[in-house]
Amino acid sequence: MTNSGPDPVSATKVAVIGAGPAGLIVANLLRKAGVDCVVVERHTRAYVEQRPRAGMIEHRVVEMLRRHGLADRLDQMADAHTSCEFRIDGRRHEIDYSALYGGRRHYVYPQQELVTDLVAAFLGTGGDLRFQAEGVRLHDLDTERPSVTYTDAATGRAARIDCDFVAGCDGFHGVSRASVPAGALTEYSHHHGINWLSVLAAAPPSTRSVIYAIHPDGFAGHMLRSSTVSRFYLQCPVGDSVDNWPDERVWAELRKRLALRDERWTLTEGPITEKRMLDMRSFVVEPMGHGRLHLAGDAAHVITPVGGKGMNLALHDGERLAEALAAHYAGSDALLGAYSETCLRRVWRCQEFSRWMTEMLHAPAGEGGAFQRRLAVARLEHILSSPVAAAAFAEDYLGQD
Amino acid sequence: MTNSGPDPVSATKVAVIGAGPAGLIVANLLRKAGVDCVVVERHTRAYVEQRPRAGMIEHRVVEMLRRHGLADRLDQMADAHTSCEFRIDGRRHEIDYSALYGGRRHYVYPQQELVTDLVAAFLGTGGDLRFQAEGVRLHDLDTERPSVTYTDAATGRAARIDCDFVAGCDGFHGVSRASVPAGALTEYSHHHGINWLSVLAAAPPSTRSVIYAIHPDGFAGHMLRSSTVSRFYLQCPVGDSVDNWPDERVWAELRKRLALRDERWTLTEGPITEKRMLDMRSFVVEPMGHGRLHLAGDAAHVITPVGGKGMNLALHDGERLAEALAAHYAGSDALLGAYSETCLRRVWRCQEFSRWMTEMLHAPAGEGGAFQRRLAVARLEHILSSPVAAAAFAEDYLGQD
Repeated sequence: MTNSGPDPVSATKVAVIGAGPAGLIVANLLRKAGVDCVVVERHTRAYVEQRPRAGMIEHRVVEMLRRHGLADRLDQMADAHTSCEFRIDGRRHEIDYSALYGGRRHYVYPQQELVTDLVAAFLGTGGDLRFQAEGVRLHDLDTERPSVTYTDAATGRAARIDCDFVAGCDGFHGVSRASVPAGALTEYSHHHGINWLSVLAAAPPSTRSVIYAIHPDGFAGHMLRSSTVSRFYLQCPVGDSVDNWPDERVWAELRKRLALRDERWTLTEGPITEKRMLDMRSFVVEPMGHGRLHLAGDAAHVITPVGGKGMNLALHDGERLAEALAAHYAGSDALLGAYSETCLRRVWRCQEFSRWMTEMLHAPAGEGGAFQRRLAVARLEHILSSPVAAAAFAEDYLGQD
Repeated sequence: MTNSGPDPVSATKVAVIGAGPAGLIVANLLRKAGVDCVVVERHTRAYVEQRPRAGMIEHRVVEMLRRHGLADRLDQMADAHTSCEFRIDGRRHEIDYSALYGGRRHYVYPQQELVTDLVAAFLGTGGDLRFQAEGVRLHDLDTERPSVTYTDAATGRAARIDCDFVAGCDGFHGVSRASVPAGALTEYSHHHGINWLSVLAAAPPSTRSVIYAIHPDGFAGHMLRSSTVSRFYLQCPVGDSVDNWPDERVWAELRKRLALRDERWTLTEGPITEKRMLDMRSFVVEPMGHGRLHLAGDAAHVITPVGGKGMNLALHDGERLAEALAAHYAGSDALLGAYSETCLRRVWRCQEFSRWMTEMLHAPAGEGGAFQRRLAVARLEHILSSPVAAAAFAEDYLGQD
């Protein structure tokens, strides 16, 4: 057989597009349920196992991973967190969210570590995962036998996968959602008018828990990733560019916005390994699918990083989709019929919470924003002073069961 | 003595400007504390005793009125409420806020009834309350002996009151705040971009508890006032005019927005006695005073009607100001020094809550508002589904202790 010969064709039950957290959960859980699937991923294995993104996993999600035997390395390596810290006017205020929500905890575990675990688990049981699948296209989604075509970038060969269902888990810019006929999905989109400079540094954490700092010059955040790596966020003007942020300016601004007034506290600095400008936006499609295509994770919805919900929603979608597809092959389509609605309830809840928290951390600049800045402070003071308001925050922050 | 003779001059400790809820509470509590005061009011007694405005009094405020013997008629006439109702998509959802906040209740008692009680209580103990005081002016607020001048509209005679303090309780458009030198107060102002048509009707209530209806055509509210009078609100476009709302249109729109899908429910109609267009805005000054002038109620802050906080804030300010002034004459200025900060904490909390509830009830119209409309529904669904979120709502709605 030569490269110009007939397409290599394979058949499976579910074709999973994308080997991010959503796709890998779908694939692993389908495999455990005995449902045949194939995963296609545009990038190399090394790329997806090294791409740093989110880092906070909800208690509820960790318990799901444990139930499926996918949390062994996470349980060895992840830090469990029980509180977060707000800084305002140079003072720090801790919220012990764990005590406020039945002892549930947040797990700090970088996304690429989880992806590494899920790739290993899937391949380790003989799963079919095809990296470097370029030019993926979806066909016949409105029929009972759709298919996926792509080109293997390593060999240059075209390939086709015939399947019963397609799980579209290839992110916001992926081909899955773009394959749905125009007008079939309702799109909800919102620009928050806020930019974050997102910085990854080879610096040990300067803190034991996440820090959210409200400062007249804008929000600053210190997120935890590992004992040697930290993530930082700096609010900057809309339209700002990474080019305006040499490393020295990043550290000076972080030192200023995170400073404490009456307490010694030092920001630990280190080489900056990544700088990205995030334009905060939200996006949701309804329903989360079309015909035999079901969307999961960022392919169906994007959310701001505020509140750390993006990856948790992707993993929730993935679990729901896998169980719905498994139920289909066991003879019931009830879960599949309810899939979109079930996921969207949590998606909208998280979008609402994330906007609420965004408003609390980033009041608009300028004279017209003075009223909103006072409301933002009032919102923070409320969760710091009212136990019942703090409990409601804890439930949202940790992820409602 | 003729009208052209020398000014009649009197002296007192506290001159209270305005006989609304704030001013009348200050005056009554000062009198009970044995602190001499004089109240001046621009309108006639009949006017202030008939002016319909707010109607919901917080449990906490009613307990304050009881402590001071000012709640006898309220306790006979007011309805105590324990729940409110939300309507969306033709379904109704009740929140039993009382059970969620230690059995506290809301009291439905029209503002003019409370004003009538407070006028009677003040005059009944020999209080000095001067109606129809026109052209009020405040003088020497930066000195230890300010004064108030006005013209008695009934006699045409000029008058002067020398005092130690001025309690500015004459509302948003009053002379008190306008008498503070430019630049001495920081003003926070916000237009919410929402209009309400506010309707008072001689119609018995159609419901046992307040109704908040979210409808694609806009918010509708049914508030309770008495067994023969009801208040209704209809969201309408910014810039809309009362002239566009003949009575038939008001009732048709209320019937449509309040309609239930699977349940019999009838809107009880009746003659409309008042129609006003409310342009939702918020306003706060910091600090709440200057020199010997202390502001209370709408003179210092206005809030939207959403959440029913305006009169409750005015009564809270009035109580705090009276106790601070009484403490001054008892030898301590600590409460007076903290007056503004104490009141502003609650003011900003209520402004934050009111905006939160405003966003839940009135998502912006038009295509750009679709995302916010879904968030508004998600916010409502959250308090309907999460007990801890409902408890946080109940605390805010009933008024935090």
